[in-house]
Amino acid sequence: MTAKSKGTILSYRRDVRVVDATVRDGGLVNDFRFTDEFIKNLYRANIKAGVDYMEFGYKASRDIFPEEDFGPWKFCKEEDLRRIVGDNDSDMKIAVMADVGRTDFRHDIIDKNDSVIDLVRVATYINTIPAAVEMVEYCHDKGYETTINIMAISSDNDSDIDEALHLIGQSPANGIYIVDSYGAIYPEQMRKLADKYLSAAEKYNKYIGIHAHNNQQLAFANTIEALSRGVSYLDVTVSGMGRGAGNCASELMLGFLKNPKYNILPILDILEHEIVPLKEQGVIWGYDIPYLLTGQLNQHPRTAIAATKEHRTDYRKFYVDLVDYK
Amino acid sequence: MTAKSKGTILSYRRDVRVVDATVRDGGLVNDFRFTDEFIKNLYRANIKAGVDYMEFGYKASRDIFPEEDFGPWKFCKEEDLRRIVGDNDSDMKIAVMADVGRTDFRHDIIDKNDSVIDLVRVATYINTIPAAVEMVEYCHDKGYETTINIMAISSDNDSDIDEALHLIGQSPANGIYIVDSYGAIYPEQMRKLADKYLSAAEKYNKYIGIHAHNNQQLAFANTIEALSRGVSYLDVTVSGMGRGAGNCASELMLGFLKNPKYNILPILDILEHEIVPLKEQGVIWGYDIPYLLTGQLNQHPRTAIAATKEHRTDYRKFYVDLVDYK
Repeated sequence: MTAKSKGTILSYRRDVRVVDATVRDGGLVNDFRFTDEFIKNLYRANIKAGVDYMEFGYKASRDIFPEEDFGPWKFCKEEDLRRIVGDNDSDMKIAVMADVGRTDFRHDIIDKNDSVIDLVRVATYINTIPAAVEMVEYCHDKGYETTINIMAISSDNDSDIDEALHLIGQSPANGIYIVDSYGAIYPEQMRKLADKYLSAAEKYNKYIGIHAHNNQQLAFANTIEALSRGVSYLDVTVSGMGRGAGNCASELMLGFLKNPKYNILPILDILEHEIVPLKEQGVIWGYDIPYLLTGQLNQHPRTAIAATKEHRTDYRKFYVDLVDYK
Repeated sequence: MTAKSKGTILSYRRDVRVVDATVRDGGLVNDFRFTDEFIKNLYRANIKAGVDYMEFGYKASRDIFPEEDFGPWKFCKEEDLRRIVGDNDSDMKIAVMADVGRTDFRHDIIDKNDSVIDLVRVATYINTIPAAVEMVEYCHDKGYETTINIMAISSDNDSDIDEALHLIGQSPANGIYIVDSYGAIYPEQMRKLADKYLSAAEKYNKYIGIHAHNNQQLAFANTIEALSRGVSYLDVTVSGMGRGAGNCASELMLGFLKNPKYNILPILDILEHEIVPLKEQGVIWGYDIPYLLTGQLNQHPRTAIAATKEHRTDYRKFYVDLVDYK
């Protein structure tokens, strides 16, 4: 267990990696219908900004999800990736997410030698860890770096988390992610969770990542607090773009990190030239009262997403219904 | 020095006080031009929500500020306050703010026996502490509870802060406030500042308060982190309404605090019936990229306020100008 914070407010740690998840988590807002120009500009900006990984989307099963219902980044086919990145002649690595139970991984995840993808992040709930481990073993054998991202951790109890970390610890996964899907975790709790994960990380020689949601305006705070404990893979999205209340914003993180390799300016360009137009087109994400309330109540944001789409402002009724439902 | 956090995530501390500063800090956005209906509804909602203090505005000098340029809450005349609260037959206390150098306190702050005001908060920069102490002595002699709020503390050095706390410690002020005017302070720094203030508080028998700004989406995080160290007076505003990026939102705080006296529902009503219309009228506050950048650079938000009013989205140019200016 890490008893003291790692690093200081002025120095930096060489193990830190910034992971841009704008297209993957932001794609949940617009069904992955980004223009190629958006993706190309973001790819170039991330490289210039010193971002370490860019997650392009999901490797979703086309048996489960009809291709015509989504933009290409729901599936991240090799040909679509290469249309943007070519052979990815850069220091930035390419990541994709694979959901347990919703990925045809034996068919869609090809040999690393034939792919521009570097990292496969396997997303799982705590009750499907063995399936996640199976996927990680498969991807590992294919030559990929892998992580297991345990979602919705705020609704799990400590002993289950301990067991999950033990199971994942024995897998070939390179990293384990703390995922606050509901945006329900407070910094005090995040520090304790980080210490728990880091304890497993030390034992099993893994790194720990964090993916935070902004329901209570705590995504950035929770990310830098986890960082201060020793968590090293930091998920961000430009303008916090992501499902519901969104994520930790790239521009907050890049302005905070002290490693001179990071540069906020290319992200400011993306905000001006890509995000402002996207918002003007009516694509909606970010902190709002319904998300705050599901976060406070440690619930899935689906009711809040529906309320926000309907532009509901009857917050009292919304809250009372949430409490009843609970 | 408080070495460990006070309180836990499930219990509550009886010394905590929630201070609603919506009208005072929010008034900086609309020149204090709230309708009486807004103020009355907010007053009633705060009482129902269990809020401990409501700050109605400034006691600004009418010699310096022409009355016709502002709504009544720039001046908080006794007759205006009483039009809203009568004799304030409630458990909630009434606060006003008095700025050093901009208050005609010997004329405008009358005997407590003749006033519905309970608390006078004296706002000062660190280089005018003796003037703040003089005001506090005056108000104390008139019968008021008082605080000294040291603004823009993120640009002061530790030894100056130590001396300021020593000077204020010897004054009759009941409380001392940490004020992050620039929204520049990170939770790790806030915890250290809180410990420093609390050390003085213990020595001189004062309470410590916090007033946070949301430039980096850290107002709520910094407030609950300061709370966890022992800070007890917590400034909030409905919807975070306040200058620039605004403040710690009442609805975030009331959903977090575990004391059953606090109730979020009346604040949800205010959000629906008062804040949504205010925003629709074009009153603007809250997190935005220019505020983020002044916060990151530890600068006064005045340039960001101007940029936001002009709806500027040329963030790179704005940033480069900020860095040049610095």
